[in-house]
Amino acid sequence: MSFDPATLKYNDAGLIPCIAQDAQSDEVLMMAWMNAESVARTLETGRVTYWSRSRQAFWVKGESSGHTQDLVELRVDCDRDCLLVLVRQTGPACHTNRRTCFYTAVRDGAEVELMAPEV
Amino acid sequence: MSFDPATLKYNDAGLIPCIAQDAQSDEVLMMAWMNAESVARTLETGRVTYWSRSRQAFWVKGESSGHTQDLVELRVDCDRDCLLVLVRQTGPACHTNRRTCFYTAVRDGAEVELMAPEV
Repeated sequence: MSFDPATLKYNDAGLIPCIAQDAQSDEVLMMAWMNAESVARTLETGRVTYWSRSRQAFWVKGESSGHTQDLVELRVDCDRDCLLVLVRQTGPACHTNRRTCFYTAVRDGAEVELMAPEV
Repeated sequence: MSFDPATLKYNDAGLIPCIAQDAQSDEVLMMAWMNAESVARTLETGRVTYWSRSRQAFWVKGESSGHTQDLVELRVDCDRDCLLVLVRQTGPACHTNRRTCFYTAVRDGAEVELMAPEV
């Protein structure tokens, strides 16, 4: 069956959540949002392209930082309302310069920082 | 720093997306939603507890199917608007009886089913 981004389920703002996972380490790196056009651009260019809700603009991951995400594979979930991209991540994925955005764990009721920013 | 679910950023419906990852295989299993109370219940009980948007009710994962998710660790992202739970998954995570909800890949413009339902 050929894939059409229009067949995905978007929220009222026309967006779908997209989880990025490192294709080598399997680490979950971040979650951001896409619209139908950013899904299409991601597939066409091989560069993971989100929709920035704050800037209301396409967000080619790493365009300014150099910390790009090259698409290895796009996956769709059973309800067609969430995406998973397996990526080759260059540099840290998080804007804080950490490898992943999920660097804070909750242990025994307290927040624990799992990693420091890269230098 | 002690963790308070009220310090997370919820959307207009009071919900935050939560990604479930298998703590053993590192496979991303599903994404669902939590409110502040389901975050608290998940931490208190060790059973991953989402908020069902369709039923507008707490959804203790596996309560009816037996396919429970035992919490290994809860993590918070940099913007505090997305959660990651590492889980011990019993049985398939997906309601279609597949190991993960992300069983459809897009390859060369076509949808490819990566796994069949378990029997």
